[in-house]
Amino acid sequence: MSQSKTLRLLMPQWQGGGNNPAYPLGARLLEWLAPKGNSPTIEVPIKPYDASSIQKERGIVEQSVLLEQLQKCTDIIKQHQPEKIIVFGGDCLVEQAPISYLNQRYDGNLGVLWMDAHPDVTTPKEFQHEHAMVLGNLLGEGDPVFAAKVPVKLNPKKVMFGGLPKTTEQETEVIQRLGLRQATPFELADNSHSIVEWIKEENVTKLFIHIDLDVLDASLFRALLFADPNKEAGFFDHIIHGEMTLPQLTRVVQDTAAVTNVVGVGITEHMPWDAIHLQNMLNQFPLLKD
Amino acid sequence: MSQSKTLRLLMPQWQGGGNNPAYPLGARLLEWLAPKGNSPTIEVPIKPYDASSIQKERGIVEQSVLLEQLQKCTDIIKQHQPEKIIVFGGDCLVEQAPISYLNQRYDGNLGVLWMDAHPDVTTPKEFQHEHAMVLGNLLGEGDPVFAAKVPVKLNPKKVMFGGLPKTTEQETEVIQRLGLRQATPFELADNSHSIVEWIKEENVTKLFIHIDLDVLDASLFRALLFADPNKEAGFFDHIIHGEMTLPQLTRVVQDTAAVTNVVGVGITEHMPWDAIHLQNMLNQFPLLKD
Repeated sequence: MSQSKTLRLLMPQWQGGGNNPAYPLGARLLEWLAPKGNSPTIEVPIKPYDASSIQKERGIVEQSVLLEQLQKCTDIIKQHQPEKIIVFGGDCLVEQAPISYLNQRYDGNLGVLWMDAHPDVTTPKEFQHEHAMVLGNLLGEGDPVFAAKVPVKLNPKKVMFGGLPKTTEQETEVIQRLGLRQATPFELADNSHSIVEWIKEENVTKLFIHIDLDVLDASLFRALLFADPNKEAGFFDHIIHGEMTLPQLTRVVQDTAAVTNVVGVGITEHMPWDAIHLQNMLNQFPLLKD
Repeated sequence: MSQSKTLRLLMPQWQGGGNNPAYPLGARLLEWLAPKGNSPTIEVPIKPYDASSIQKERGIVEQSVLLEQLQKCTDIIKQHQPEKIIVFGGDCLVEQAPISYLNQRYDGNLGVLWMDAHPDVTTPKEFQHEHAMVLGNLLGEGDPVFAAKVPVKLNPKKVMFGGLPKTTEQETEVIQRLGLRQATPFELADNSHSIVEWIKEENVTKLFIHIDLDVLDASLFRALLFADPNKEAGFFDHIIHGEMTLPQLTRVVQDTAAVTNVVGVGITEHMPWDAIHLQNMLNQFPLLKD
């Protein structure tokens, strides 16, 4: 029996994004929508959503539960020893175990393309939600408790951001100090040249592509935090919004795959509000439970 | 072996709504989101979407295919002889076979609550898409070719509309001539009194609830034709839009179920644009087919 070389992970984690019950359905719907492929999907056990029990520990919401779930995900990956990993999240923190494993497997040479409206390099000083620290953790920054779980840190030269509209002062400091490259939504609007050049210049031969769907323009793709129809206009104005279109994002991924070996893809932060609200209604209908 | 008394039908029909490939995924997603219940879902075979082969016959888009699919749905229902039917559509025409069967089974006494932004009583003179004629067909009006397939017509006194914002001149004529009752979105905003009164006055003891999701306000629920993010603002302004909220619709259904026996629920016209666009992107990603 030949073992599948690609592992598909479903990780409906919500705790890293804070008090938001939309994540689990979003993760499951992503997996349902994706092509079926030839490898089975393994689900990482996640503590179910329960608003009443949410705790903040050492500045981080649900830190100990997140550490347990990180360990479970790591254990599943080690058991399978895959060459490639697909991740259906869940909040962005779901990427930590897969990227950490792949970077170790590929001797610290893993490239990471971070398609996201946010660089995820904050620390517990600025923020309370671990999903905004995950790339920092993988670089040896971020949250020291989580960074300590990464045996081989990412090489900053092998990390590039795509689709960041702008960054905060703290994020800018980290990006500049580590010399992390980036391509703005404007630069990626018509072509993917800057990313292809980075792959060639840094000789990225194994690439993980992280996608936080919030890199997309929320008026064109509404399954995002910022497009919650029950929040009044302006509610999320203080948070940076993505500006890319789905065809632009698709083209970037395809152009990238044409010039390097993609060994991982993670898709995160899917919040299908209409599906959630529709499901809530159907759950209250007569006859449907017959 | 006891036969299940409730039949669940998945009918991913798109031809009745015209040239729109969003229907099949919408139907399947509805079924996926709904509570699982105890009866298996039977899928009615539907000719797959193919833009290049769409034909207009006797004024109606894809009339002969729609007649074949109506017959297949009728055959499945007759084979199962259910007491109650759940329908996951698909365009509104998916309701014809289930309602026709149930009205015959219940001796012409079936009540029908039609929650929709449109009364679906047009004829081939005004329109080319059969989904806008289905209630007409069931009343012996609509499209004569489809009306001829209904052995026992609905009693107009046992039909009520909920959520119609307004109607066209032709629709108004049919509604007035047949004396069909209606409750506007405004009347249903705070309570369901008018529908509960109709159920009591007309002694509706078996009720089918039809839901065209376009009865909802498309700014609050975006999985609707009118909320296609790729259409420019104003594109659908000439069509009447729904105005209800999900909690209002849920409450109407629950209030109704509290005073009569719900023997059928149909949910139709689900167009999950974000899911469709996301799926298109995932289908083009590297690694996901491994």
